[in-house]
Amino acid sequence: MLEKITSPKDIKNLSYGELDGLAGEIREKIIATVSKNGGHLSSSLGAVELSIALHKVFDAPRDKIVFDVGHQCYAHKLLTGRYDRFDTLRKLDGISGFLRPDESEYDTCATGHASTAISTCLGLCRARDIMGDDFNVVAVVGDGALTGGICYEALSDAGNSKTRMIVVLNDNEMSISHNVGAMSGYLTRLRQSGWYRNFKRGTRNALDAVPHMGAPALRFLEKMRDLIKSLFIDGKFFDALGFEYQGPINGHDIAMISRTLMRAKKSYRPVLIHIVTKKGYGYEYAQSHPELYHGISPFNAKTGMPVRSEQARYGDIAANELSALAQSDARICVLTAAMALGTGMTAFARNYNDRFFDVGIAEEHAVSMAAGLALMGMRPYVAIYSTFLQRAYDQIIEDVALQRLPVTFLIDRAGLVGSDGETHQGTLDMCSLKHIPNIVIAAPRDARDLRRLIRLSLEIDGPMAIRYPKDACDMGQGMQENKPLRPGEWELLNDGEDVIILATGRMVERALEVSIELHGKNIRVGVIDARFIKPIDEELLKLAADGTKLLVTLEEGYVNGGFGSTVLEYLAEWGKTVPVINIGIPDVFVRHGSVEQQEELTGISRESVCKRIMDKLNEVNDGDNAR
Amino acid sequence: MLEKITSPKDIKNLSYGELDGLAGEIREKIIATVSKNGGHLSSSLGAVELSIALHKVFDAPRDKIVFDVGHQCYAHKLLTGRYDRFDTLRKLDGISGFLRPDESEYDTCATGHASTAISTCLGLCRARDIMGDDFNVVAVVGDGALTGGICYEALSDAGNSKTRMIVVLNDNEMSISHNVGAMSGYLTRLRQSGWYRNFKRGTRNALDAVPHMGAPALRFLEKMRDLIKSLFIDGKFFDALGFEYQGPINGHDIAMISRTLMRAKKSYRPVLIHIVTKKGYGYEYAQSHPELYHGISPFNAKTGMPVRSEQARYGDIAANELSALAQSDARICVLTAAMALGTGMTAFARNYNDRFFDVGIAEEHAVSMAAGLALMGMRPYVAIYSTFLQRAYDQIIEDVALQRLPVTFLIDRAGLVGSDGETHQGTLDMCSLKHIPNIVIAAPRDARDLRRLIRLSLEIDGPMAIRYPKDACDMGQGMQENKPLRPGEWELLNDGEDVIILATGRMVERALEVSIELHGKNIRVGVIDARFIKPIDEELLKLAADGTKLLVTLEEGYVNGGFGSTVLEYLAEWGKTVPVINIGIPDVFVRHGSVEQQEELTGISRESVCKRIMDKLNEVNDGDNAR
Repeated sequence: MLEKITSPKDIKNLSYGELDGLAGEIREKIIATVSKNGGHLSSSLGAVELSIALHKVFDAPRDKIVFDVGHQCYAHKLLTGRYDRFDTLRKLDGISGFLRPDESEYDTCATGHASTAISTCLGLCRARDIMGDDFNVVAVVGDGALTGGICYEALSDAGNSKTRMIVVLNDNEMSISHNVGAMSGYLTRLRQSGWYRNFKRGTRNALDAVPHMGAPALRFLEKMRDLIKSLFIDGKFFDALGFEYQGPINGHDIAMISRTLMRAKKSYRPVLIHIVTKKGYGYEYAQSHPELYHGISPFNAKTGMPVRSEQARYGDIAANELSALAQSDARICVLTAAMALGTGMTAFARNYNDRFFDVGIAEEHAVSMAAGLALMGMRPYVAIYSTFLQRAYDQIIEDVALQRLPVTFLIDRAGLVGSDGETHQGTLDMCSLKHIPNIVIAAPRDARDLRRLIRLSLEIDGPMAIRYPKDACDMGQGMQENKPLRPGEWELLNDGEDVIILATGRMVERALEVSIELHGKNIRVGVIDARFIKPIDEELLKLAADGTKLLVTLEEGYVNGGFGSTVLEYLAEWGKTVPVINIGIPDVFVRHGSVEQQEELTGISRESVCKRIMDKLNEVNDGDNAR
Repeated sequence: MLEKITSPKDIKNLSYGELDGLAGEIREKIIATVSKNGGHLSSSLGAVELSIALHKVFDAPRDKIVFDVGHQCYAHKLLTGRYDRFDTLRKLDGISGFLRPDESEYDTCATGHASTAISTCLGLCRARDIMGDDFNVVAVVGDGALTGGICYEALSDAGNSKTRMIVVLNDNEMSISHNVGAMSGYLTRLRQSGWYRNFKRGTRNALDAVPHMGAPALRFLEKMRDLIKSLFIDGKFFDALGFEYQGPINGHDIAMISRTLMRAKKSYRPVLIHIVTKKGYGYEYAQSHPELYHGISPFNAKTGMPVRSEQARYGDIAANELSALAQSDARICVLTAAMALGTGMTAFARNYNDRFFDVGIAEEHAVSMAAGLALMGMRPYVAIYSTFLQRAYDQIIEDVALQRLPVTFLIDRAGLVGSDGETHQGTLDMCSLKHIPNIVIAAPRDARDLRRLIRLSLEIDGPMAIRYPKDACDMGQGMQENKPLRPGEWELLNDGEDVIILATGRMVERALEVSIELHGKNIRVGVIDARFIKPIDEELLKLAADGTKLLVTLEEGYVNGGFGSTVLEYLAEWGKTVPVINIGIPDVFVRHGSVEQQEELTGISRESVCKRIMDKLNEVNDGDNAR
């Protein structure tokens, strides 16, 4: 049946029984595809019935449906004409794992970071009201995303505005891993208030039974119902924010969701519908371990086992190092924002549960709280993905850097991230942190260096950021010493009369490859591990600038305002005129594909770097000959 | 009496009557000082009794008191040994207008941006609990700051943690101007629930009357009370978040606040005390127009009239231009985050109330909502202070720039801001925006140019940022044309064979001054108005680089990763070796003082710029002679 669905119109006339069948087919397709391509499985499986009900009741794209984050959007994609191309999910030039308006008119807006859907939808509603239009606007928000403060800012504004808007709270009793915060407990109490639920269902059915009742009588009955409601445990939290609360209802019952949505459509004020689903629903492995299958690499659909064993990850190394240090250092504590598993910090949590804080999707709060911990003499480590660190930019400046507090940011998924694509690239952290006073920024080239940097962070009386990609590399014992580092210390790995490459983090390995490749062309390329982006190693930079024909900076981040521009600033100040090329990510958002493909697209692959260096060397040599 | 108070110990034994007298003296001192130095008057006047009660009940600095933002902190400063130096408020080397731990051990942390106090305090509590200490932690938060989502993130985390913590919600029925959002309505309903209040007071007094009652009986009574509470309108919003709600109580009654604080001190779980105050209390002008006296310039204390009439402000010019354009362009709408008056946008709101949205202190929500409006074809203008734009960094990237939506940021208070000091400097916007793909960034040199840039923003199909300081300048009709601008268009104001200065925004005027001054020393200095920071005018830059001995970039923002580094990146790419000096704010947080003093401190005053140019020219000429 699914392959015949080319647009939501095709499901309008299907019976609820047929729709249940369709849900099964959608699940199969999602499992089959994600097992091959990787992707966000658990959330998407949990939202199949909801997606069907939404497209049955609403007329997209005229009606606007916005899935927060986009983790839940695969069924939506399959229902809106993308079945044929669904095999290309998360592949280069294939369909995105998130919502993309340039991919389909059914994707209202691009999403990727949690908790913004209600704000966006309120913008849609207000534009609609200004323009005198009357379409429906629906935000679909997970209970995990509801931890994010921007949701509350938006609920409060929307509830006060009294504009017509529907928020579907998809409560799967967890965000990416387990849920945190008081809101979670509150939702549980709502779910468990069974007596009230039955009572309410009775009222509702009674109202349903008299569809042709006159409006005044209906309003009276509704008022009575509201009065009774307000006396008992119910959605008073949402009531306080100006929303009409409906629920909780079974989120895997298409008929029940549809009926509730139809009623909400008729409301003239903001409505919040609380549905309860199971993450990973319909796939036993995902249902029993939803956090493992949240964002998953390719796996065997039959056994649920990963296709490849994972490489060692930098996050695990960081967690182990911190665990070891924490044995003798009671000041060490770790914070994360719903990324305990992804950042590897579950390992720390197992050992030091009392010094581990997962605040949920609340990056700003995590950073300000870390400032509070540091004020009392603790040594907080905030483990966070590069792309989500953007959320806490102001708190890093005002609460941490301004007070020169010893908070260390362990920035995971730095650089190109592959198939999650443009909303998740870790390409901004260096250029967005380096202009903040008092901060030290470093990027280790391998696992050993990460451990050295973490040990150094304990010595630094101020903020530090350590950025690294997901997969760790280890260049072997021979490559480096294990002695303590000083802030700003670079390392000359090999010398080169023609060219010296100043490389950071994962790009050090690239620079070494390039140096070998160009050695074959008789070009002598030196490599410096510029492991500190701030401060820099002024002495080594001066030596490099004076001792070579061409300097190259190589970074896995935006070149615009990045590490390379720091080097230019110093050279300008010193009046050095050695030619420089800055290589890094160009000034565009980098779309999904494999990391290798993205490296080629952005010109930081081995071939591209070699070519740029050779071209520039020719130019430089031509200039010298002409002189 | 006040002059004898050298620490909070001195008020412990005063009677409530004496403390009321003290409150009067504190008010007089605050009014006298702020009328001379300017400052945050209304909030500080509203929090006098609260500050006295806090220092009477708690033992700072052992107990930690954190005032959110710091707008309310003047009484606290006067009570903690800073009476003698209070006359230096907001002056260079004087005491700060905000909290500063390096100024006093009674200032737990540095503050300046709203809504972070609960997060910080939770960090303090968790550090305390880890270390086995037992001091008290109190966050003082205004109802305006409660609009900010990070408060909710922190309340939810704190409520769930069950750690011992007190939040005082100082509800003055407004934030900086009027209050917005559903929370405001909710607090009003709480305030008005008089019947319940009386009922509750009865219960409480009954409990107070039996201080020696056994713990089990007390717990039973409290449980009963909670049960009864939950049946009626009360702080269920805060209950849902895990806080024990107390209030509302009269925030100008020192005895009542003190008694409530003493009870809260004994609680073993998070408590929220809701006190109701009047902003500007005790000074009739401030009380009747609290928003005008929120952050005020020097004024006549007797008449309430400002000492100087204000200069024309860029914000007013922007608001007028937008109002004029909005007459024939129904797409134009304006958003602000609690800064309607400060950004001048009240003028727009008067004309187009249906297209004006003040979301309160909720910058992230404002930007995501603007994205939603733009998705529907509107042309949203987000009027915001440079320093607060930092809050929405992630939303600018993910929701606006990634989708190339035509949202224009009107960035007010850009550059050095004077006496508000380091937490409010507008020195980060250029370097934090320029690496974001798809964005156009401009800084007008005067009022006419601002109007041209606003007209241009309507032609650009993507995000744009226009940054300007508070006070507008107008260089006169003769200085420039009024024809439409193209993105990236710089303007050569005068040519110079020796030096060319590329200046942005307010620094164009500085560059012209420098050019005149150096003309007297026979140095021919050209000036280019580099009004676009991104994209740049490549043609004009090439001409400048080829036609002069020295290029100078001059910007009112951090030099590290700022406009000057963009110029260096282009020159490096083109292989141009003209010497460059980058002048701008150095890599430090710039403390409070006048703008002129800050310009001197940071090396962007006329004298400093002249000197740096002359020194570098000597160097360059020496090099030429040696060759």
